[in-house]
Amino acid sequence: MLQPGKTIGILGGGQLARMLAMAAAPFGLHCHIFAPAGDNPAFEMAHAHSEAAYDDFDALARFADRVDVITYEFENVPAATADFLSARKPVRPGPKALAVTQDRLSEKQFLRQAGLPLADFFAIDSLSDLEAAIAQTGLPAVLKTRRMGYDGKGQVIVKRPEECPQALAALGGRSCVLEAFVPFLREVSVIAARAQDGTVRAFDVCENRHRHHILSQTVLPAHLTPSTAAKALAYAATIAEKLAYVGVFTVELFVVGEHDQETVLVNEIAPRVHNSGHWTIEGAQTSQFAQHIRAIAGWPLGETRRLGRVVMDNLVGEEAAGWAQILAQEGAHLHLYGKAEIRQGRKMGHV
Amino acid sequence: MLQPGKTIGILGGGQLARMLAMAAAPFGLHCHIFAPAGDNPAFEMAHAHSEAAYDDFDALARFADRVDVITYEFENVPAATADFLSARKPVRPGPKALAVTQDRLSEKQFLRQAGLPLADFFAIDSLSDLEAAIAQTGLPAVLKTRRMGYDGKGQVIVKRPEECPQALAALGGRSCVLEAFVPFLREVSVIAARAQDGTVRAFDVCENRHRHHILSQTVLPAHLTPSTAAKALAYAATIAEKLAYVGVFTVELFVVGEHDQETVLVNEIAPRVHNSGHWTIEGAQTSQFAQHIRAIAGWPLGETRRLGRVVMDNLVGEEAAGWAQILAQEGAHLHLYGKAEIRQGRKMGHV
Repeated sequence: MLQPGKTIGILGGGQLARMLAMAAAPFGLHCHIFAPAGDNPAFEMAHAHSEAAYDDFDALARFADRVDVITYEFENVPAATADFLSARKPVRPGPKALAVTQDRLSEKQFLRQAGLPLADFFAIDSLSDLEAAIAQTGLPAVLKTRRMGYDGKGQVIVKRPEECPQALAALGGRSCVLEAFVPFLREVSVIAARAQDGTVRAFDVCENRHRHHILSQTVLPAHLTPSTAAKALAYAATIAEKLAYVGVFTVELFVVGEHDQETVLVNEIAPRVHNSGHWTIEGAQTSQFAQHIRAIAGWPLGETRRLGRVVMDNLVGEEAAGWAQILAQEGAHLHLYGKAEIRQGRKMGHV
Repeated sequence: MLQPGKTIGILGGGQLARMLAMAAAPFGLHCHIFAPAGDNPAFEMAHAHSEAAYDDFDALARFADRVDVITYEFENVPAATADFLSARKPVRPGPKALAVTQDRLSEKQFLRQAGLPLADFFAIDSLSDLEAAIAQTGLPAVLKTRRMGYDGKGQVIVKRPEECPQALAALGGRSCVLEAFVPFLREVSVIAARAQDGTVRAFDVCENRHRHHILSQTVLPAHLTPSTAAKALAYAATIAEKLAYVGVFTVELFVVGEHDQETVLVNEIAPRVHNSGHWTIEGAQTSQFAQHIRAIAGWPLGETRRLGRVVMDNLVGEEAAGWAQILAQEGAHLHLYGKAEIRQGRKMGHV
C-alpha cells in the first residue's frame, strides 16, 4: 500500500490529470505531472511537473526517480515510453492494458477472444482488404484508423462501394479496421475499477449523448432494462479480469434491440477515467478520480453508490462562456478546466 | 464579477488555504498563495506561491500585482499588511472584519453593540483590573489574551482569587479580557456567507466537541430546539450585516439552559472558513470553501442544503496514522492535509 506523503506520477497534463491530482490531494498523496509543452491545466494542481516530450528519456528517467507509482490520463502513451518507465517504477494500469487498447484491431481481437459481443470487424491494410470486407459487413460501414482516434477523429463512414478509395485516403492510408455499422438505439458506458487484490467495483451505467462526435451529455439512470445493465456490468468485469487490470477503466457499449430483444455490444475500452464519469465527482459516494487513485495506490476501492438522478453537460468551446448562468442555477456544479483559450470543439468544462 | 481565468491571492499556506485553492480550481480561477517559509501544504495546490514574511512589503507588492482579489485563511493578518494590500487590490473580507475579530475586546464590544447575547466581559490591563473584574463575574472565570489566541492557546481559567497574578504572568502580561465562565451544555457553530449583494446564506448549525481545546468532532444535526437554531442563524445574519461582510465566516456559540430555557450566547467570530465546516465538502450541496470563493468573486452564493447526517472527526497528531482503517470504511471520506510531519496537537486531516 502506498503511504500518504508518497508521489504519483501522471503522464499527460490535461483536465483528466488535473482532476486526478485534485483527487489524490485529500489522501495526502502528491502528484508529479509529466507532459509536453503546451496548455497543461494539470500543472497548477500538482506538487511538481516536468515539461518534456514523451521521447525525452533523460526527462523520463528523472521523473521516474521522483515518483513512487506512475499512471496516465490517456491511452496513447508511446509503447517505448511505457516500457522505459515500467522498468523503473510500477506503471498502473500495466503495459498489457495499454498495448491492447491503443490498437483498435488488437482491442477487438481481445474482446472477441474474451467471448464478448461486438460488431463484426476486419483488418484493413489495402483497398482490396476494404472491398472484401464491405462484401461481408454490407454498407454503410465505419472505417477507423487502428491508432490515435478519439472524439470521432480518425474515422469515416463508407456509404457506397465507390467511396472506398477516398475513405482510405481520408485516413492517410494508415492501417484501419472496418466495422459493421450498428443501428444502435443509444450509447452507454460502464466506468469500473479493479483493485490490486482483484476486487471490481462499477459505477451505475451511464447513458451518453454525443454532438459532432463529442460527448455532449451524460444522464443517469440510463434507459436500460435491469438485465441489459447487468450484462454491461458483467462485460466490464470480464474485461478487467482478462487484462489483470489495476485502476479505473471505461467500456463504451451500444444498446441494440427493443423490449425483450434489448442487448448491448461492446464498442471500445478506454484504460482510464472518462468524460462520461465526471458526474461521479458530486453524484457518487466516491469519484472516478478518487477510485483510480485508490486502485493504483493498492488501497481498497471506495463505494460506488449513486447519490441521486444526474445530468452532466459538457461545456465545449463557446458553451463555457455561459458560466455565469450556471453559477446562479441551484443544484448545478460548475467545473472549468482552467484552459487558457476557448477553441471550437475544445472541452472547456462540465456541469 | 471576477471572470474565470483570474487569480485569487490567499494569505496563509495551511490546510484552509489548500482547501480554498482546491475549491477555486473547478471555477477556472487560479490561486496565488502568500505565506512565510515553513510547511505550507497549500503551495502544491496553487498556480503560484510567494514564500515571504507578512512584513516583506516588496514581496507583498509583487503579490498584489499578480492577483485580482485577496483573501486570507486566518484572522491574525497584521493590520499593516492588510492596509498595504487593500490599497492595491480588493481584500475580502474587508479590513473592518479583521480589525474587529483580531481583538477579543473589540469583538465583544461589537457583539454587545449589535445587541447580541454574550457572557459578561471586562478589559484587563493590570492586576487591579482583574481583581475588580472577578468581583463582578465571580469565579471561575476565563482570562484570555486580546490577540492571537486559538485552539485554547492564550487562555487561563482563574479558579481562586489568589491565582490572579500567576494567570496574568502565564499570559505574558499582555492585554486581556476576562469572561464570566459559561456553564454551557454544548458548543455549536454557524458557518455562513454573505455575498457582495448582501445575500446571507448559512449552513445548518454544527455541534462541536473539543478535546484538549482542539476541535475533535462535529456532528449534524446539532442537538438544539428549532427556535434555538433559528436564533443562532439570526445572530450570524446580524453579524454579517453589521460588518458589511463579504465571504464565509463562523460564529461559535454556547448553548445554555435546558428545555424551554434553552438559548445561545455568542462566544466568538472567525472571519474565515472553519474546521467545524469541513463536513460541507461532501455533506452539503456547496462546500464552505466553494461558498467563500463565490462570495469574494462577487458571484451568487451556492445552495447550503445538508445532504444527510454527518459526523466529522478531526485527525490530530498520531490519529492520522489510522488512515488505512479509514480508507476501508464504507461512506468515510479521508482528508489528509499533506503536512510533512506529524506533531502532537497538529491538525493532520479529517474524516
